[in-house]
Amino acid sequence: MNDDFEKEIENRRESVEAVLKSYLPEKGGYASAVIDAMNYSVNAGGKRLRPMLMLETYRLFGGSGRVVEPFMAAIELIHTYSFVHDDLPAMDNDEYRRGKKTTWAAYGEAEAVLAGDALLNYAFETALKAFACEGADEKRIVKALSLLAGKAGIYGMIGGQAADIDAERSGRQAEPEQLLYIHEHKTAALIQAAMGAGALLAGASDKELAVIEKAAGEIGVAFQIQDDILDVTGTFEELGKPIGSDERNSKATYVTLKGLDEATREQKELSNHAIGLLESLSADGYQNEFLTKLIKSLITRLK
Amino acid sequence: MNDDFEKEIENRRESVEAVLKSYLPEKGGYASAVIDAMNYSVNAGGKRLRPMLMLETYRLFGGSGRVVEPFMAAIELIHTYSFVHDDLPAMDNDEYRRGKKTTWAAYGEAEAVLAGDALLNYAFETALKAFACEGADEKRIVKALSLLAGKAGIYGMIGGQAADIDAERSGRQAEPEQLLYIHEHKTAALIQAAMGAGALLAGASDKELAVIEKAAGEIGVAFQIQDDILDVTGTFEELGKPIGSDERNSKATYVTLKGLDEATREQKELSNHAIGLLESLSADGYQNEFLTKLIKSLITRLK
Repeated sequence: MNDDFEKEIENRRESVEAVLKSYLPEKGGYASAVIDAMNYSVNAGGKRLRPMLMLETYRLFGGSGRVVEPFMAAIELIHTYSFVHDDLPAMDNDEYRRGKKTTWAAYGEAEAVLAGDALLNYAFETALKAFACEGADEKRIVKALSLLAGKAGIYGMIGGQAADIDAERSGRQAEPEQLLYIHEHKTAALIQAAMGAGALLAGASDKELAVIEKAAGEIGVAFQIQDDILDVTGTFEELGKPIGSDERNSKATYVTLKGLDEATREQKELSNHAIGLLESLSADGYQNEFLTKLIKSLITRLK
Repeated sequence: MNDDFEKEIENRRESVEAVLKSYLPEKGGYASAVIDAMNYSVNAGGKRLRPMLMLETYRLFGGSGRVVEPFMAAIELIHTYSFVHDDLPAMDNDEYRRGKKTTWAAYGEAEAVLAGDALLNYAFETALKAFACEGADEKRIVKALSLLAGKAGIYGMIGGQAADIDAERSGRQAEPEQLLYIHEHKTAALIQAAMGAGALLAGASDKELAVIEKAAGEIGVAFQIQDDILDVTGTFEELGKPIGSDERNSKATYVTLKGLDEATREQKELSNHAIGLLESLSADGYQNEFLTKLIKSLITRLK
């Protein structure tokens, strides 16, 4: 990744950040401890990848209004709640994330349960604000809402987390099919929601949505396999976290199940296919060079 | 409460139950442990008060279609997730509810966190199905969705729970104003969502919605004060749980803060005012005798 492109990503990340900040709940009142915990969780940082992918897919299909903004905030709120609850002692029991205390470690367990609930609920409160945006197209918003809700829920992201926990608790090595289900749901579903909602809000057809959902699913799985690969091939300096943790935790990954070479081959195949799908849209005049570069950088990243 | 009316409530509860069951998530697949926990939580019983109030308020304003049904399921899903999370060890640490194991006690803590998340998310997935109902009026559905989301969130029910936890942790006796905030949000907000959404889906005007929201808020607070009163005046046989638990836990209630006589007086005043508001609607031809009787029975109940 060259310096100019890194700078460009950083610029766009800051614009996304500004949108996000404008939708955060206001502090104060009797519920202020949990409102503070909500703000803390969202402000703990991150690449803001999902809202960025949503915005760029919206632009890919010619979207230019502000109706996408409440949805950008909503998807980041959903992503945020998911790790607030994932980090809980009853779940992964993580005290630190990106070098900062996790929400329960900073605010208490009960507050983190409620902050997570509040963030998820607030995601829908926020997305619903799209109906009040200038030039809002109600049919498109309803479709985007339904996609977002479905991909976030028990048949989407939560389903992936449920399967992941089940696999860990079973004490048995996960089957390849089960691991693919986990990656497709835990990680890829929210990438599909991001890109799919962006497409729908810009007026993409059912056929175009199907292309985007397919590509986003492949991107999500490739992204996750890259995570598994980096856990073996990366260095502490690059990743900022201990490597080899999956193997030490006997966690089934693409690499432990299929070996490094096969995992790398599948990751490349998925990535190339996804990029090909996106590029096929240019025949209908849909092009977004930044989006393509962003996705390439995600799935070939070294950290 | 006479026997005929009790039978009538039971009949209507069974119809509500049938609607609810038709919207529950299907079992099976890699996420089945959490899907089972979701079903278990909803099927653990309850009076189904909120969907019943919603349906009867919908009928009060002349509603007769099925567009209210996904919303009836949605509000019960929200009510259900709230106690799945409330019962967690990190929150109230309750192992039993209505004589049955709570969700975390039956399925594990991580599963209960995810089942609660999944129920909340599924509430929105379900309510969104209203757009696909025959004769759906999109503007009404959007208003009902926004009301539901707002009343369930950090400025509604979750805000009340956050304030409640904050008050308990502070070690200080709650102020009367703070206790009113907790009752208005933790309990009344979801009653407002139930009756308000029913009204909106039937086409109630902004002015009529305001009357319903005011009445529902008073009903919710009166219902909660009645809970506080019964904790002092009820018997174990009537309530099916130990009495005097609030005093033993030094929990601030209307009775501990204001005394039994004043609490009883305020409860009656709120109840009478709410009933008066509902009856005032009959001047415009809106009447639902069952709804009025149901509400009277709720706020004068002995268990």
